[in-house]
Amino acid sequence: MEQDKKKWSGRFNEPVSELVERYTASVGFDYKLAEYDIQGSLAHAHMLAAAGIISGSDLADIERGLEQIRDEIHNHQFDWQVAREDVHLNIEHRLTALVGDAGKRLHTARSRNDQVATDIRLYLRAASDEIISLIRALQQALLELAEQHADTIMPGFTHLQVAQPVTFGHHLLAYFEMLQRDAQRLQDGRKRINQLPLGAAALAGTSYPIDREAVARELEFDGICRNSLDAVSDRDFAIEFCACAALIMMHLSRLSEELILWMSPSFGFIELADRFCTGSSIMPQKKNPDVPELVRGKTGRINGHLVALLTLMKSQPLAYNKDNQEDKEPLFDTVDTLKDTLRIYADMMTGVKVNQTTMRQAALRGYATATDLADYLVRKGMPFRDAHEIVAKVVRAAEDKQCDLSALSLPELKQFSAVIEADVFAILTLEGSVQSRNHSGGTAPAQVRQAIERARSSITE
Amino acid sequence: MEQDKKKWSGRFNEPVSELVERYTASVGFDYKLAEYDIQGSLAHAHMLAAAGIISGSDLADIERGLEQIRDEIHNHQFDWQVAREDVHLNIEHRLTALVGDAGKRLHTARSRNDQVATDIRLYLRAASDEIISLIRALQQALLELAEQHADTIMPGFTHLQVAQPVTFGHHLLAYFEMLQRDAQRLQDGRKRINQLPLGAAALAGTSYPIDREAVARELEFDGICRNSLDAVSDRDFAIEFCACAALIMMHLSRLSEELILWMSPSFGFIELADRFCTGSSIMPQKKNPDVPELVRGKTGRINGHLVALLTLMKSQPLAYNKDNQEDKEPLFDTVDTLKDTLRIYADMMTGVKVNQTTMRQAALRGYATATDLADYLVRKGMPFRDAHEIVAKVVRAAEDKQCDLSALSLPELKQFSAVIEADVFAILTLEGSVQSRNHSGGTAPAQVRQAIERARSSITE
Amino acid sequence: MEQDKKKWSGRFNEPVSELVERYTASVGFDYKLAEYDIQGSLAHAHMLAAAGIISGSDLADIERGLEQIRDEIHNHQFDWQVAREDVHLNIEHRLTALVGDAGKRLHTARSRNDQVATDIRLYLRAASDEIISLIRALQQALLELAEQHADTIMPGFTHLQVAQPVTFGHHLLAYFEMLQRDAQRLQDGRKRINQLPLGAAALAGTSYPIDREAVARELEFDGICRNSLDAVSDRDFAIEFCACAALIMMHLSRLSEELILWMSPSFGFIELADRFCTGSSIMPQKKNPDVPELVRGKTGRINGHLVALLTLMKSQPLAYNKDNQEDKEPLFDTVDTLKDTLRIYADMMTGVKVNQTTMRQAALRGYATATDLADYLVRKGMPFRDAHEIVAKVVRAAEDKQCDLSALSLPELKQFSAVIEADVFAILTLEGSVQSRNHSGGTAPAQVRQAIERARSSITE
Amino acid sequence: MEQDKKKWSGRFNEPVSELVERYTASVGFDYKLAEYDIQGSLAHAHMLAAAGIISGSDLADIERGLEQIRDEIHNHQFDWQVAREDVHLNIEHRLTALVGDAGKRLHTARSRNDQVATDIRLYLRAASDEIISLIRALQQALLELAEQHADTIMPGFTHLQVAQPVTFGHHLLAYFEMLQRDAQRLQDGRKRINQLPLGAAALAGTSYPIDREAVARELEFDGICRNSLDAVSDRDFAIEFCACAALIMMHLSRLSEELILWMSPSFGFIELADRFCTGSSIMPQKKNPDVPELVRGKTGRINGHLVALLTLMKSQPLAYNKDNQEDKEPLFDTVDTLKDTLRIYADMMTGVKVNQTTMRQAALRGYATATDLADYLVRKGMPFRDAHEIVAKVVRAAEDKQCDLSALSLPELKQFSAVIEADVFAILTLEGSVQSRNHSGGTAPAQVRQAIERARSSITE
Repeated sequence: MEQDKKKWSGRFNEPVSELVERYTASVGFDYKLAEYDIQGSLAHAHMLAAAGIISGSDLADIERGLEQIRDEIHNHQFDWQVAREDVHLNIEHRLTALVGDAGKRLHTARSRNDQVATDIRLYLRAASDEIISLIRALQQALLELAEQHADTIMPGFTHLQVAQPVTFGHHLLAYFEMLQRDAQRLQDGRKRINQLPLGAAALAGTSYPIDREAVARELEFDGICRNSLDAVSDRDFAIEFCACAALIMMHLSRLSEELILWMSPSFGFIELADRFCTGSSIMPQKKNPDVPELVRGKTGRINGHLVALLTLMKSQPLAYNKDNQEDKEPLFDTVDTLKDTLRIYADMMTGVKVNQTTMRQAALRGYATATDLADYLVRKGMPFRDAHEIVAKVVRAAEDKQCDLSALSLPELKQFSAVIEADVFAILTLEGSVQSRNHSGGTAPAQVRQAIERARSSITE
Repeated sequence: MEQDKKKWSGRFNEPVSELVERYTASVGFDYKLAEYDIQGSLAHAHMLAAAGIISGSDLADIERGLEQIRDEIHNHQFDWQVAREDVHLNIEHRLTALVGDAGKRLHTARSRNDQVATDIRLYLRAASDEIISLIRALQQALLELAEQHADTIMPGFTHLQVAQPVTFGHHLLAYFEMLQRDAQRLQDGRKRINQLPLGAAALAGTSYPIDREAVARELEFDGICRNSLDAVSDRDFAIEFCACAALIMMHLSRLSEELILWMSPSFGFIELADRFCTGSSIMPQKKNPDVPELVRGKTGRINGHLVALLTLMKSQPLAYNKDNQEDKEPLFDTVDTLKDTLRIYADMMTGVKVNQTTMRQAALRGYATATDLADYLVRKGMPFRDAHEIVAKVVRAAEDKQCDLSALSLPELKQFSAVIEADVFAILTLEGSVQSRNHSGGTAPAQVRQAIERARSSITE
Repeated sequence: MEQDKKKWSGRFNEPVSELVERYTASVGFDYKLAEYDIQGSLAHAHMLAAAGIISGSDLADIERGLEQIRDEIHNHQFDWQVAREDVHLNIEHRLTALVGDAGKRLHTARSRNDQVATDIRLYLRAASDEIISLIRALQQALLELAEQHADTIMPGFTHLQVAQPVTFGHHLLAYFEMLQRDAQRLQDGRKRINQLPLGAAALAGTSYPIDREAVARELEFDGICRNSLDAVSDRDFAIEFCACAALIMMHLSRLSEELILWMSPSFGFIELADRFCTGSSIMPQKKNPDVPELVRGKTGRINGHLVALLTLMKSQPLAYNKDNQEDKEPLFDTVDTLKDTLRIYADMMTGVKVNQTTMRQAALRGYATATDLADYLVRKGMPFRDAHEIVAKVVRAAEDKQCDLSALSLPELKQFSAVIEADVFAILTLEGSVQSRNHSGGTAPAQVRQAIERARSSITE
Repeated sequence: MEQDKKKWSGRFNEPVSELVERYTASVGFDYKLAEYDIQGSLAHAHMLAAAGIISGSDLADIERGLEQIRDEIHNHQFDWQVAREDVHLNIEHRLTALVGDAGKRLHTARSRNDQVATDIRLYLRAASDEIISLIRALQQALLELAEQHADTIMPGFTHLQVAQPVTFGHHLLAYFEMLQRDAQRLQDGRKRINQLPLGAAALAGTSYPIDREAVARELEFDGICRNSLDAVSDRDFAIEFCACAALIMMHLSRLSEELILWMSPSFGFIELADRFCTGSSIMPQKKNPDVPELVRGKTGRINGHLVALLTLMKSQPLAYNKDNQEDKEPLFDTVDTLKDTLRIYADMMTGVKVNQTTMRQAALRGYATATDLADYLVRKGMPFRDAHEIVAKVVRAAEDKQCDLSALSLPELKQFSAVIEADVFAILTLEGSVQSRNHSGGTAPAQVRQAIERARSSITE
């Protein structure tokens, strides 16, 4: 980017220094808003012309100029200049160079304060929509894998100790549900993003006879910001988006942790396709789950951006302050990180190879059917708390013998409670345990299949 | 709280030490969930009886016992014991002491994992509703003050420099809008809170023929959690709540900053009622705006709680881990802080005394009507950018003379542009400037009054 | 706590309301500073008397009164009152009740601003020293366990994939080093804590002929705060402490994660003593590593407190603002959490039971000696990068045969490189690999023993 | 950057996809480490040759190749490739292209794990040193301004209410002290940065006879990391640096807040030079303090980076995980932000123009000498608390009369206390008040001058 030295306006004695220019300029990152800036300017110009504030011929000039600028940007021919501070002044300056006085009239009845607020909202609306689509794709990948493994038994963990057998399909559906809420949250936040700030001008509105509803309609906003001071100064919608992003990454950090664990040789439950892994510069045998590790690490980045924005907005008096220029980089990086992460994740989940035998063996360690034994005793009439205490003793006996519960003989079992009969062995199997949890939300394969069906229809509506 | 030493169950060789007991116990804070724990237990028991899992007489015992426990807690007669870990085991232990075997049967077909998730959701649903009410009360207070000052002129600031005149009523309405979105966010989040986890048991569901929909109906949940692993392990709804709370506090930190500035003698715009201020132990003349300062400070506390929960959940493998016990204190403190802050704020805003003269004088400093002069030139046919540059020079001339724009004579003004005529002086007044911003969201008193009316009806619907 | 209603001083028209009183009072938590408040007051009084600002008989009264108050507090007989706001006014009020006018003279030449800054520094100095001692105790426990396992071979992981064999003793020493830096950081921060603010009074110093150095000497401060405005307004030393605390918890979260993994049946490397575990209310077989899980979770709490304090201090104009009252709860909770966590951890590490066989078997999975094979080839003259590529192919061949590298025959190995001879098998063993890393910081048992010795002397100096 | 497709090594079946390649590559940001990577490689090669692990001619080749690469990078002719992942493999690949087998031997006895840890430490050591220098420059600027205004009286604020008069020089020295601690913290952290990880190899050390002390000496490290697992896996030194950075930004956010307030027309205490300000696109009269506003906003960015790194490291099992790649961007941006901010701040402070008259007038509002009156009464024998209460009433009387304390007549004053005599008026002046605070750390001009002298010598030692 080239630079030219200038005083800010006729009011200033002294030009800004080069360091100050670089420190205060935003064009190095807000050029990303160019497309939305042009959309907003076109809608603004249409309204100005319709209201008689500018002439039809000015409008035609502005339209022609902005189209050319759009092409130049698209073809990487646009000459961005740090000395022109930001995306807005870069475009306006070029427009005036292209079409003369009409370019100088475009900024009538608006300020950069309402202009940038409009740009960010258009940008974030598009980003939200795209991220929701990417969530859907990841959900699809999860559903396909879940369907393949609706019957695959694995140990369900609590505290990373074997708790009860579950199916791998059921386990995956937990992540479907998390992502479902994530998408819903983004959808809810979109309502608050999709309000038009234009017309607020610097902070107080404008003295021109503008038609804000017309601009809102053209730009497909749901409505207009109801207060001009609020319109230019708040960024709560961006923070809300970042909070949603942090929750998505939190959910993916959990899945990533599990993929990493499951791929560790001590677990050995799954393998990731080679294309999601890299090796070591020193250890020739290594195949590392780089992608889930990076996703886990990027959780920090997104939490950091959320904190940055919350800190940024704390205690700012109304209305716009320059602090707000710092809202963009964290937001842009949040959007980019989220898009890449979701895209790569959907692809990665389709390449998960499951070692069913290893999963099953792991489920056989850790007395996963102990709760089933307690439930069995309750069905024989024992209060649950007493049954729980008896089974705890059975487990300790099995541990001393270093065998599973199902390997204890009936007489051995009867020593703990006389009500135990031969029918107990059916409920001590993994399959018996899993199939018995046959209610909405339970891990029985039949329930898992129903849940997949319901899930599928919920995301294709 | 008294303590007794015990092994965890028949499976354990060794009792936990006193420090471990204290470190791992949660009853010191989760006793706050007692009322919701009882509600959940009653609904669970009703369902167990309806499904024939427990007898009618067991149900009657449980009901009687839980009612007595509710009374004991309410009357501060309940003997909470750290040795019984948490609210759930404290209540269950007492119930069994009161009603015997029926008490031991209550935990059939559930686990503490789904029980505590249910308790928190009931707690947070009630908290959300109460906080929404408190937001409404603060909005009411803002509307009343705004109505009194729909015509009161103050300087509108950007960058804390005088920008354009606005009305104080208009300024206050900006906060109404922020709080409106805050309430809407809580309402949106409530849908995700209000889903029933019970029935998930430890993580996989249960082998009993339970009726989750019946429990959901009795507890007025909107639906049931669709996946048992997800039901017991996620706390995203609580983090979402904390993010909403952080935004509310961010908004109030801005208003607090303004109240503190406005009450500083250099501004002198307002006074807070004495009951919201305290003095100094050394300086006898001091009257300090303690309440807004504390609110500003408490923004940090709430941001901290949000970070605590996000950090807590990062990378946890499914399903429940003990880490999650740490979700409660940050959440409870967020709720309490928010309730107190909103309550005190609504009261404080009714006691704001406005110094209209000082506000008006401040608006006369800083060339607040310079934009109006530029708009005037545009209406005379000049492109906005040229008008902007000319007015910048007029301002510099006025600065050199140390006078306001309206104090320049017509000949002086004409030196900068021949199109300026005597009608310019009307638009250089504060009233003229304010009244000209007469569109939706603008600061014209007529618009402010309409906005108040619309606002009032929106919160009483 | 009882309350009485009062106006703040003769300057105020209106008493604060009960909610305001509760909202602004700090005595509910700053009573923890009482002992330090008394120490500071005694030193202040000694100086006032030495400087002739109060009489010897006033000093005697103050000493007597403060000793009695100290006893009352110690015996839980002190009547803390919310209406007296904070620890300072509660004590001063009681002192005046006990000794009359001398009590009213104690506050000469000081303000609560410099008083509370002094109290917090005394508190935090003591806390730092105690925490350093607790770190030392945990380091001792690590060294003992490391010494027992200087030869115990386990798989060293990177990316949770088996990388190279290490000894368990070596692995534990990594945590020794982390804690070493943690203690050093606290020691460094102590210099900045240990500066006396007293004498700064409200913000500007005092008109009395005070002797700050004398007070500093009596209270064993390293020096005095050099600027009165800075002395009363900054809390950077507390934030620095919280950042150190966050690093300690980060380190312990890593060890906790490993303990949890190692205790999971898929790893099965260790067992924690029963007294650090609890069970499940539903699953009778469960033994959960509650303590490390809670430590991992409490990392969030401490990160949150750090963020709270950083947010709190952002953008505060000088000098003291009421916001700063919010510094105490996060700080106190950080100290308490750290003390409990370190204490419980030192105890827990002494109860770790190691399953050496399982560790060794895990090291045999994953081709842990592949790097040794590459190094062998390099010693035969091959460039490292070529050796790395050849070994990668050997590993793939072994994977296809589902055997370890050492199970390949010499002819099989020779197919990949003719330089391989029978001496290769010595370096393919776990013991050979471990012993060959025999330099400072390496995992060879001899190095581990030396490292333990050096570590021991470093913490007992 | 061009890309070529390749499998990771002979162990992999499938190349990584383009998105995976981009997602996992770090060369887009870690190219910043190139100079340090080359320094580290040279020292490593020297040691390998000295130990006889590589030949003298290999060393000569490596030296020649690395020098050429250094030139290529310096002249922007180096062909960075995303497909070569990171700075290390890009350089090694180029080296091998330039010098053949010697290039393939450079990686003997090291891994990227210890290599990158070394690079970051070299980078951060240089950054710390540079930042300390920049702090010194800002301190110099503060001292110069303080010296010019050692006698300039301004209102000292607490709670943004006028508290007591102070000198502007004294006020500025508060920031000198904060920065003094900031520099000291960086200096303390440097010890922990400046330890050599090389020799740790992947995680366990290496089987070659390396000489780590020699490498440490050549690279001017203070010592070597004592444990190989710790050396490659911890990043606490980087987090400590970020915590120091957050404190620096917190301090500058406070000064920025004050500059913004002081430049607001309601205060009008100072003006910033035009080159640190910009205007408005709509309001021609505006001159906005952009630089301090941006600094205040960038506080959020730095807090965010700290949170990112703390979150990143939470719960990572040993040793190196790919998550750690995420440590660089937050760290690099922290360093760059800090350097720019300190540089611009030092320059900006030299351009501060002080309006002494306005400051003085503001000090006359708010009864700033009320404490002096209380102290006067104490010197006449009254207990401080009683004096405080009497002066509170005097202030209220003056408020009712809307005049300053010094404007009350002696008879009026005597109504409140008979001990007041004509000598009271000397202590009620601003100058009298300021000069009376004549002790170490107090605001008396004589003390301020001494403090400046001491400060000067402390930073030039």
